[in-house]
Amino acid sequence: MTKVIMHGCNGHMGQTITKLCENDKEIEIVAGVDCFDGINNSYPVFKSVKECNVKADAIIDFSNAKAVDELLEYCVETQTPVVLCTTGLSDEQLAKVAEASKKVAVLRSANMSLGINTIMELLKKAASVFAPAGFDMEIVEKHHNQKLDAPSGTAIALADSLNEALDNEYEYIYDRSQRREKRDPKEIGISAVRGGNIVGEHEVFFAGIDEVITIKHTAYSKGVFGKGAIEAAKFLAGKVAGSYDMADVIASK
Amino acid sequence: MTKVIMHGCNGHMGQTITKLCENDKEIEIVAGVDCFDGINNSYPVFKSVKECNVKADAIIDFSNAKAVDELLEYCVETQTPVVLCTTGLSDEQLAKVAEASKKVAVLRSANMSLGINTIMELLKKAASVFAPAGFDMEIVEKHHNQKLDAPSGTAIALADSLNEALDNEYEYIYDRSQRREKRDPKEIGISAVRGGNIVGEHEVFFAGIDEVITIKHTAYSKGVFGKGAIEAAKFLAGKVAGSYDMADVIASK
Amino acid sequence: MTKVIMHGCNGHMGQTITKLCENDKEIEIVAGVDCFDGINNSYPVFKSVKECNVKADAIIDFSNAKAVDELLEYCVETQTPVVLCTTGLSDEQLAKVAEASKKVAVLRSANMSLGINTIMELLKKAASVFAPAGFDMEIVEKHHNQKLDAPSGTAIALADSLNEALDNEYEYIYDRSQRREKRDPKEIGISAVRGGNIVGEHEVFFAGIDEVITIKHTAYSKGVFGKGAIEAAKFLAGKVAGSYDMADVIASK
Amino acid sequence: MTKVIMHGCNGHMGQTITKLCENDKEIEIVAGVDCFDGINNSYPVFKSVKECNVKADAIIDFSNAKAVDELLEYCVETQTPVVLCTTGLSDEQLAKVAEASKKVAVLRSANMSLGINTIMELLKKAASVFAPAGFDMEIVEKHHNQKLDAPSGTAIALADSLNEALDNEYEYIYDRSQRREKRDPKEIGISAVRGGNIVGEHEVFFAGIDEVITIKHTAYSKGVFGKGAIEAAKFLAGKVAGSYDMADVIASK
Repeated sequence: MTKVIMHGCNGHMGQTITKLCENDKEIEIVAGVDCFDGINNSYPVFKSVKECNVKADAIIDFSNAKAVDELLEYCVETQTPVVLCTTGLSDEQLAKVAEASKKVAVLRSANMSLGINTIMELLKKAASVFAPAGFDMEIVEKHHNQKLDAPSGTAIALADSLNEALDNEYEYIYDRSQRREKRDPKEIGISAVRGGNIVGEHEVFFAGIDEVITIKHTAYSKGVFGKGAIEAAKFLAGKVAGSYDMADVIASK
Repeated sequence: MTKVIMHGCNGHMGQTITKLCENDKEIEIVAGVDCFDGINNSYPVFKSVKECNVKADAIIDFSNAKAVDELLEYCVETQTPVVLCTTGLSDEQLAKVAEASKKVAVLRSANMSLGINTIMELLKKAASVFAPAGFDMEIVEKHHNQKLDAPSGTAIALADSLNEALDNEYEYIYDRSQRREKRDPKEIGISAVRGGNIVGEHEVFFAGIDEVITIKHTAYSKGVFGKGAIEAAKFLAGKVAGSYDMADVIASK
Repeated sequence: MTKVIMHGCNGHMGQTITKLCENDKEIEIVAGVDCFDGINNSYPVFKSVKECNVKADAIIDFSNAKAVDELLEYCVETQTPVVLCTTGLSDEQLAKVAEASKKVAVLRSANMSLGINTIMELLKKAASVFAPAGFDMEIVEKHHNQKLDAPSGTAIALADSLNEALDNEYEYIYDRSQRREKRDPKEIGISAVRGGNIVGEHEVFFAGIDEVITIKHTAYSKGVFGKGAIEAAKFLAGKVAGSYDMADVIASK
Repeated sequence: MTKVIMHGCNGHMGQTITKLCENDKEIEIVAGVDCFDGINNSYPVFKSVKECNVKADAIIDFSNAKAVDELLEYCVETQTPVVLCTTGLSDEQLAKVAEASKKVAVLRSANMSLGINTIMELLKKAASVFAPAGFDMEIVEKHHNQKLDAPSGTAIALADSLNEALDNEYEYIYDRSQRREKRDPKEIGISAVRGGNIVGEHEVFFAGIDEVITIKHTAYSKGVFGKGAIEAAKFLAGKVAGSYDMADVIASK
């Protein structure tokens, strides 16, 4: 049983993780930290991590950038491993994260979903087999109609996984409508579909002669990031100081 | 039982249709026309349609543009309806087709596949329901890595079906990577995937709040055009003079 | 602008519909009815429909079977059309519904999703074209791992749509592992996949020679039923007495 | 450049491989063996492997069971590695294969497709991550309407890959329509869809909380087995005596 402190427990992700932990026998939230209250949790909640007097095996953090500095200090002092999910950290803060990871176990990943991170590992293996055998690689991602950027950061990260396994020789192509020529084998095409309130769907195609392999991830809610954070906390408990990411969690399975 | 003359019987599509007809009890090829020989067919083959002395209920044509002029003359003279599948006709020839259709039944379509043509009808109905209810429409097409143009002509034709049902108010968008803004509701996004030897795959998405409807067509070989031509010939037999297309075949079901 | 009373406004579906209406300029909730309170709504809420003194163009009902009797009386008395989404009505109640629909407009459907109901109409057309052309029809549905029955009621309803268009000559097949024989053309295979917390996914395949057409519906949350109910209410406002269903809503588009 | 002898060069698969090799700079067919002639190949063809006086780095075999005995003798004598793709071998012949593999490199696999074999490796990794995290595993396969058995042998092999990674604790379920109960976590559901002339499609689903991962293989023609055999021949050239399978080919990438 892994005991965790939920840092940012009253936010959307904090509450999602609280519910997921209630149905998971291997993990228990023993304390929460949030400057906002008004929610009844089954565990004690502190205004700041400095006030928290409950010991835990790990901390899961989905708070905001401002709270991260004192979180890192707390983790180093109490030697509590931390799963750091807050985004938008400044370069100065990223340097502090690197510094902290020399003294305590710190895990950060571009995408906390267990599914996406596992797929990234599978894609490396798949690319190293299929690309030399002449298969073409393409990615299609789908997101809601409010999303500003295209393609998604996760689609780029998936392409990077493919590319990394192939000596980074591939170019990313976002539009083929403006030219009239055959596909270059050293391309990875990335298409973005936008509509409705689709949470996130990513498909990677390996298209060869008379066969196509598809590896697809569909997210039905942002809760998948919570699930990934919980697995990360279980993994991180008891680990020595160092910088970890979701690939380590998956490799440990 | 519809009796047909296969015009261009020894070409790739002519032979595909010959095989399909052998397994179809409602149609029989009673004669073929082709300037090339060397293939043993179960029906008599003539060098030119002018030499053909066998009567039929319809002609299926997959020949080449040069042969179309005398084909049209033959159809008018003998009052034989014709399914015209040869592409690359000149404007002069298209005028002759229009002229001929005043005197005999002529069917021509951008895409002879029964599937694509049926989907076009379904899309009009679907668009007229989903678009006013706030659903976004997007198209993804996939083809082999030798294809020069993107998106495919069929993808554009599918988008046109949607647009036609909606007073042609929609703009087609081929690339979202060069801007950073929310999707406009009056867009139809069209993405092109290229890889391997994929014959042709078209997906149309209607993405709403918490639900997505997908209408998809997958072609496994160019034989699907043969299948469509056969259904067209069955339909056209006995029809009065006029200009028909695959939508009429489908509407008759 | 359609003015509606939300009957069962404080339940899960009532609140979902409340939020959907806030973003829809063509509809407004002018009053709610619920025996439970504790939720702050932007409209007045009454304990019982009998106490409601606000006039509306239609009522949307997602309450419970017990509340339906007095709801029907209210609708007849005040001549307010009703979209009846409560399930589990007794035979006696269904008789009352039939009686009420002689005096006021009543809409009931097995599935309130706009998507599923539209697909049902598309499937009838598709089946009437593809089945005579030799295409095989198969259905795959996916739901969460807590679902007791298989296949889903909606999958059966989709199969019924196909079958209805084909003189009900088709038999439904749920398992092919226990026999060793070719598929009979007069079958509709229905497969059920169970896993995770999948809300509901239905795919209908038309498989022919070298082409497959797929019509698919994916629900991402139960909110889709709310969306359908809203469209139904807009449609029903002003309608004469009678029994309506979602197919009428779609046909009106 | 790997030089190969194509054993069974005038059969359907032999000709498919001949064409694939023409476009592959890393392999060349230097001789063919077939008791049937009438086809013009760019390489010399012998009636029997015993008559073949051309040296090669490997032999690809897609012939018939009768020809396998003398093929094995030839391979041992000339120390030529062999990719053995002929099916329907007797137990006596399988014993001979085992014997031969002590003296020369022999590769045999249940399915020669590079795609399916690669997926099997990916599935083991995926199962070992997702199953312990509570994901449910399901398989859907689709084949043509002439197939007698269900589910396909490949679907079973894919399920075995999952199961093998999980201490073989999972039960395979082919039908859920005859019971009314929740899914047991230790099940792998396998559904079979039949229709048209679908060559073969296999989908494996990992369904978790709010996310689903799909790994899918689509075969567009039996040519995929040819592609796999070519990769196997390239791998096998120069290998020491032993029994190999497609997993070894993939592991070498």
